[in-house]
Amino acid sequence: MTAITDDPRWLDDGEMRAWRAYVIASELLRKQLNRELQEGHGLALADYEVLVRLSECDGGRMRMAQLAGEVASSKSRLSHQIARMETAGLVRRVECGDDARGVFAEVTDAGRARLDETAPTHVAGVRAHLIDLLGASDQQALADIFERVLSHLGHPA
Amino acid sequence: MTAITDDPRWLDDGEMRAWRAYVIASELLRKQLNRELQEGHGLALADYEVLVRLSECDGGRMRMAQLAGEVASSKSRLSHQIARMETAGLVRRVECGDDARGVFAEVTDAGRARLDETAPTHVAGVRAHLIDLLGASDQQALADIFERVLSHLGHPA
Repeated sequence: MTAITDDPRWLDDGEMRAWRAYVIASELLRKQLNRELQEGHGLALADYEVLVRLSECDGGRMRMAQLAGEVASSKSRLSHQIARMETAGLVRRVECGDDARGVFAEVTDAGRARLDETAPTHVAGVRAHLIDLLGASDQQALADIFERVLSHLGHPA
Repeated sequence: MTAITDDPRWLDDGEMRAWRAYVIASELLRKQLNRELQEGHGLALADYEVLVRLSECDGGRMRMAQLAGEVASSKSRLSHQIARMETAGLVRRVECGDDARGVFAEVTDAGRARLDETAPTHVAGVRAHLIDLLGASDQQALADIFERVLSHLGHPA
């Protein structure tokens, strides 16, 4: 049983305004970026994000468990996603004999080519629908706010 | 064919820092709030959000198409979700004979009771993982930034 507090601290008007704007805009933004990648290139945003993370690693590979944290996915959901991406030739799974911590995902040459082809569309969307709407101080505030959330939720910076 | 710009404007370090923090923290925050509702009450965050929106309407009902916009869902995805929620007794679908614009979703008494029971958990999570991490000026910045995004993406304020 979880203890129920008798008197929840409801959000006041200003807090509610911030929360509502943030939560609805975030979902719409994600849908918009996904739509642009899908319509332009037939690639899902979630797959794009995996290609980005892998391509930035040494050897283009990362442990599945670490990758799940990086893209904020569950291990089982990521496992299905990586299987689909492997079928599409974008990544491969690699077992490292000397490493008991298991399986790595590795970006293929085709995956890197896909990323090069799609990145201009993604960055244009991120600029058009968020970054270019903000001045420097808003960008700083955005970074500060969500780095605080990351740190609070135990995510490595 | 979409025209491809030869020279994408990549994000600079400050822009990338803001984007990365925001996009990863948002996914982690959503997962955390969903986990707390699931573990505490067996309710998905997406279902909670539907109950909130409906309960705030006159008569506890809203057109499906409008509700899809409010919770940033596609109509087909929302349709499946509402069907599940109807089976669980939380909402019902109502056709209005004099309104050609179709089907409404309406929260049931059981749905309102479920919302009353779960809201303290949700608001405690929203506070703990976001709102209470922020000072008043950060809350204001958060609202300003994402109201700009909402307006840009054509969402009614």
